[in-house]
Amino acid sequence: MNEALDHTTVVHAMQPDDTPELRELYRGFEEQSLLPLWTQLGDLMPIHPKSKAVPHVWRWSKLLPLAQRSGELVPVGRGGERRAIGLGNPGLAPHAYVSPTMWAAIQYLGPREVAPEHRHSQNAFRFVVEGEGVWTVVNGDPVRMSRGDLLLTPGGNWHGHQNVTDQPMAWIDGLDMPFGQQMDVGFFEFGPDQLTCLDTPEYSRGERLWCYPGLRPLSQLKDTVNSPIGAYRWQYTDAALSQQLALEAEGYPATVATGHAAIRYVNPTTGGDVMPTIRAEFHRLREGTQTETRRDVGSTVFQVFDGRGAVVMNGETHSLERGDMFVVPSWISWSLQAETRFDLFRFSDAPIMEKLNFMRTEIEV
Amino acid sequence: MNEALDHTTVVHAMQPDDTPELRELYRGFEEQSLLPLWTQLGDLMPIHPKSKAVPHVWRWSKLLPLAQRSGELVPVGRGGERRAIGLGNPGLAPHAYVSPTMWAAIQYLGPREVAPEHRHSQNAFRFVVEGEGVWTVVNGDPVRMSRGDLLLTPGGNWHGHQNVTDQPMAWIDGLDMPFGQQMDVGFFEFGPDQLTCLDTPEYSRGERLWCYPGLRPLSQLKDTVNSPIGAYRWQYTDAALSQQLALEAEGYPATVATGHAAIRYVNPTTGGDVMPTIRAEFHRLREGTQTETRRDVGSTVFQVFDGRGAVVMNGETHSLERGDMFVVPSWISWSLQAETRFDLFRFSDAPIMEKLNFMRTEIEV
Amino acid sequence: MNEALDHTTVVHAMQPDDTPELRELYRGFEEQSLLPLWTQLGDLMPIHPKSKAVPHVWRWSKLLPLAQRSGELVPVGRGGERRAIGLGNPGLAPHAYVSPTMWAAIQYLGPREVAPEHRHSQNAFRFVVEGEGVWTVVNGDPVRMSRGDLLLTPGGNWHGHQNVTDQPMAWIDGLDMPFGQQMDVGFFEFGPDQLTCLDTPEYSRGERLWCYPGLRPLSQLKDTVNSPIGAYRWQYTDAALSQQLALEAEGYPATVATGHAAIRYVNPTTGGDVMPTIRAEFHRLREGTQTETRRDVGSTVFQVFDGRGAVVMNGETHSLERGDMFVVPSWISWSLQAETRFDLFRFSDAPIMEKLNFMRTEIEV
Amino acid sequence: MNEALDHTTVVHAMQPDDTPELRELYRGFEEQSLLPLWTQLGDLMPIHPKSKAVPHVWRWSKLLPLAQRSGELVPVGRGGERRAIGLGNPGLAPHAYVSPTMWAAIQYLGPREVAPEHRHSQNAFRFVVEGEGVWTVVNGDPVRMSRGDLLLTPGGNWHGHQNVTDQPMAWIDGLDMPFGQQMDVGFFEFGPDQLTCLDTPEYSRGERLWCYPGLRPLSQLKDTVNSPIGAYRWQYTDAALSQQLALEAEGYPATVATGHAAIRYVNPTTGGDVMPTIRAEFHRLREGTQTETRRDVGSTVFQVFDGRGAVVMNGETHSLERGDMFVVPSWISWSLQAETRFDLFRFSDAPIMEKLNFMRTEIEV
Repeated sequence: MNEALDHTTVVHAMQPDDTPELRELYRGFEEQSLLPLWTQLGDLMPIHPKSKAVPHVWRWSKLLPLAQRSGELVPVGRGGERRAIGLGNPGLAPHAYVSPTMWAAIQYLGPREVAPEHRHSQNAFRFVVEGEGVWTVVNGDPVRMSRGDLLLTPGGNWHGHQNVTDQPMAWIDGLDMPFGQQMDVGFFEFGPDQLTCLDTPEYSRGERLWCYPGLRPLSQLKDTVNSPIGAYRWQYTDAALSQQLALEAEGYPATVATGHAAIRYVNPTTGGDVMPTIRAEFHRLREGTQTETRRDVGSTVFQVFDGRGAVVMNGETHSLERGDMFVVPSWISWSLQAETRFDLFRFSDAPIMEKLNFMRTEIEV
Repeated sequence: MNEALDHTTVVHAMQPDDTPELRELYRGFEEQSLLPLWTQLGDLMPIHPKSKAVPHVWRWSKLLPLAQRSGELVPVGRGGERRAIGLGNPGLAPHAYVSPTMWAAIQYLGPREVAPEHRHSQNAFRFVVEGEGVWTVVNGDPVRMSRGDLLLTPGGNWHGHQNVTDQPMAWIDGLDMPFGQQMDVGFFEFGPDQLTCLDTPEYSRGERLWCYPGLRPLSQLKDTVNSPIGAYRWQYTDAALSQQLALEAEGYPATVATGHAAIRYVNPTTGGDVMPTIRAEFHRLREGTQTETRRDVGSTVFQVFDGRGAVVMNGETHSLERGDMFVVPSWISWSLQAETRFDLFRFSDAPIMEKLNFMRTEIEV
Repeated sequence: MNEALDHTTVVHAMQPDDTPELRELYRGFEEQSLLPLWTQLGDLMPIHPKSKAVPHVWRWSKLLPLAQRSGELVPVGRGGERRAIGLGNPGLAPHAYVSPTMWAAIQYLGPREVAPEHRHSQNAFRFVVEGEGVWTVVNGDPVRMSRGDLLLTPGGNWHGHQNVTDQPMAWIDGLDMPFGQQMDVGFFEFGPDQLTCLDTPEYSRGERLWCYPGLRPLSQLKDTVNSPIGAYRWQYTDAALSQQLALEAEGYPATVATGHAAIRYVNPTTGGDVMPTIRAEFHRLREGTQTETRRDVGSTVFQVFDGRGAVVMNGETHSLERGDMFVVPSWISWSLQAETRFDLFRFSDAPIMEKLNFMRTEIEV
Repeated sequence: MNEALDHTTVVHAMQPDDTPELRELYRGFEEQSLLPLWTQLGDLMPIHPKSKAVPHVWRWSKLLPLAQRSGELVPVGRGGERRAIGLGNPGLAPHAYVSPTMWAAIQYLGPREVAPEHRHSQNAFRFVVEGEGVWTVVNGDPVRMSRGDLLLTPGGNWHGHQNVTDQPMAWIDGLDMPFGQQMDVGFFEFGPDQLTCLDTPEYSRGERLWCYPGLRPLSQLKDTVNSPIGAYRWQYTDAALSQQLALEAEGYPATVATGHAAIRYVNPTTGGDVMPTIRAEFHRLREGTQTETRRDVGSTVFQVFDGRGAVVMNGETHSLERGDMFVVPSWISWSLQAETRFDLFRFSDAPIMEKLNFMRTEIEV
């Protein structure tokens, strides 16, 4: 193999002399909608992924007041559809992309407000870092939203939201919209302006059918691409993480690494990811734990759910508090540090990278 | 197609004339360990499955006293290994097969008794119709056994049992031993005479890792052939069935058929059957419900868990009470009738039939 | 683990004393169709597979004359259906089973004879060690049978045969009938007495659609359980094996082991076995090659296609010539020795063992 | 559902009044790297895919002379790596993307020239519309390139090319580079400047191992993500298509639609697509045939291999001759018309769309 070759230098070295003939050739290319590889190779085929997206942290202390102010100034309703404020990766401006594949936002619903129903090809979830009082109605099934819950609205499912209280509520949304926009996959349909079901049950029908460990309704034997579980409740996530750390303390293998408990939210019909493009996980670090430094193909977003700590991205340390969000673009090194017990929700585009055989990981030793 | 052809008549009609030459030919066959198809076709290739196994009911009121009496007369320990009394299908004597694929038994453990550890290729489960006080230790993980629980000991897992109380306990065992014996697949190893772990925790370590709906430990991402859940607890089974009937009452699809709730126990890493050869389910019928009459390839065994009702097999009605067990051999028609609310545990060899493409079902209309 | 425990001795040691009470208990068992595990454990759960089937060799020099004599004495037609003479494993008498799962036979069709159409759940193939002139018609598609060809008639496919020449023809049949008979899975239907198509094309329609390496008809994108290829022609098998040995000679990895080329016949829609229960392979050994000694769960049958050599089963050497057939039952050790270049067709029940997670192999070192 | 709602109008209608307070809010968004959904929804979530890519035709009569001229003016070698001229979709300028996922180019290698070895994550293939004399060396295995052949160099495989004749040769390349660049997945490594193998065999070692219909080397039982077949030869493609039309003429189902034969190139270890992101097919239309008008999610590129005809894209007809290439972006309607017998090579990103559950097709009736 070739030592120390670098595209930039090599490509420059190799460009043909700038002659009138070459310029004429290049004009010919232009007229015929052609572009030579030899002038563009470094961009098209980098030595390793070099994302235009940059590592970035958004502070909950800034996000929430802006969302609240939007609640005063911007109506929610048909057309705008959602009062959602997207995290725009500074490297991807002017697009509202948190990464090349993912969109992340804070959504805000005032007292008694309703976000009308619609559906789209893009896969979506909501995660609740604080508050309560909103029900999201997915294909007619009302799902309560409470702190720590993960709620799914997979591609093709009708959904709208209503706040049944006199208090506003904010949460985060995650979607694969940037992937969809760039890859031209999206369909969108408006639904009724009013929700199809105004009930506010404690548990959705999907949960009542599906949320028993290892039990599958005999009426639902066909595997589904998306998880049939509309809400992954905090009580289970919390218990699962606590038990992993307890088992570790008792001397049994249960955690990902010492002091590091984690679960993946999965589709119970397959054991795989909840939706075809989005992976969702929850991580808990014991106080004082530091994770390995790693880099992965694909991008990931975290939100701090509880505790204090820091993330180191590309060697730079960012302290973190409840609600703070950050993005790790493709092949950027990262690790987490827990000052207190440290709880983080995480989502990523890993299913895309794995299904298309592009996943690759490097652990710093 | 040929109308009204029947193997018996046709085969007889077609046998060649019994001549000295033919007899000499047949002697030649015998000397060379050969058997002609034309004299055996009806047995080898019936028009539809005609099992030697017969439909049969075993009464708990008879089983339990015999098990108790065994407890007085027969020691449990190394060699005999288990005080288990197998249900012998009358059509399959002298084999202790409840069906051509399955073995079913009542197992009995007296106060403070221990069944020593061993392991084998055959897949096994236990289901508890009544009693408590025994822990089964699977690969060193003690699993409490209580009424309504399904416990797994898949092929290759070390396991033993101990009764930690002053009361005896009985339960049923199901294994794929007849399949294994006829198909020559079995390995067996003796383990220690004493259990590797004497703890009696409320929940096994497997449950603490795995029993949260839709949550997968990040440390356990590799799919497993067998379910990692050692115990499927009654509280979840009961709740799942109750919710199916409640949803049905509210007007939503949730049950298999009107008044008929059912769950399948599954491997959470795949959503499929708990073990490669055995399907396990639990069915609940509302009072007065009667199921469709159907026949399936493969055999199935039921145990009444609660309530009163009946099974109709091949047109014959058998009334049923708590603990009663029955077997439905391949292609025998059957339906259930619920006199009261009627709860039944069920297991079958359906995974074998499905994986090998032999499953076929006929519903009587 | 427990050293040197053997079921036989242990089980005997552990039997309870023969008392009047015990005898009464056993009578109770009998009345209730029950059989205790402790008296049967050694049979139900052997230390390793101990097949009743025995290793056995059938000589083509004996088989063929008996088949020819059958041609003179036994008509072929409706009822008997086929003039097929099954290889009966001496350990499985009186059943015509070559092994617990498989049936193997020599089939013989006289000049101008027709074997009428039928279909059944059981999976079948034919392999031609010599001769030509017969077409098998599978679902209306006539398939030429020639030396070295493997022909499939998977479960559920209508099929019949006709000899269009004035010479008789013999070939071998393989089916999963013993599995089907013991596991109660079989359905059988008679078809028309005459073949549905009397054409005798060089290549079947299935071959014309499917037999191009790596090319899939766009009209056939749905995967099928059974291979859509009706005939695997000798010219390809021979070329594939020759090229493996040539590549090996050139220094590239291509063979299973030095001097040992082999192909598996596969379903092109999945890359897996040709039928759900039967694996088919062809092996070629260079002159002087000896294979490793191994044992596997499941049974396998070989037929010598060309050359001379030997098989060692359980330490006993059997010399082999063209057409000779032998069976290796489950967990019997075996290896092959090639006196000349040595070509063998092979089939087995390995798909059953693999799908049900019972496969296990031991290589002698 | 909501009748006649259109994003453009609705979104405009719903924008909040432009007040100082709103402007201050938007400034706050900007400072915090946030972008509201309600000003961007139409772009992020269109009613149906609205690709920036446009339907476009490139003429071989223009491509080839420009490639030839490049051969005179531009060296091939380390750094530029390949003398490849990319088809730049006019809607995606300045990127050299033929579609959002795919890159397509004409590559040109002069007499005795060598394109040095390298490897990359991106998946690549070559298709030869005319010429011969080049061998591509893939992981050390030299593969002859001839008219009508499809050659694979899947992600991660080392590859280089050499022209061993005194004539230049041109062919087309297809890669998933645009997907890789936008989704940040790519790795690239330089290999030796000289090819690792200078042999020019008729058939590559991969072909000698794998190219027998339905036969799998026993030494290669592990399924691979990419096809192990390096070259899909024209002789097989041509024969497969001819036989489909012949079977159709004989009255049997074999073609996709009347007069329309087609094959998909597949991975023989799975029956699925040749590489994880790229589907490759070959279509043959009988003279006078017109295909249905359809639209699909995802983009596809065709090259005319032989004959004359036309493509209708979005209602506009483009006549086509040998070597002409065209792209159909996502959700653009298209159909083909055959003036003579009409042969076309085709590739697309359909595996991406199918694996991520975004595929959707509409047939005009």
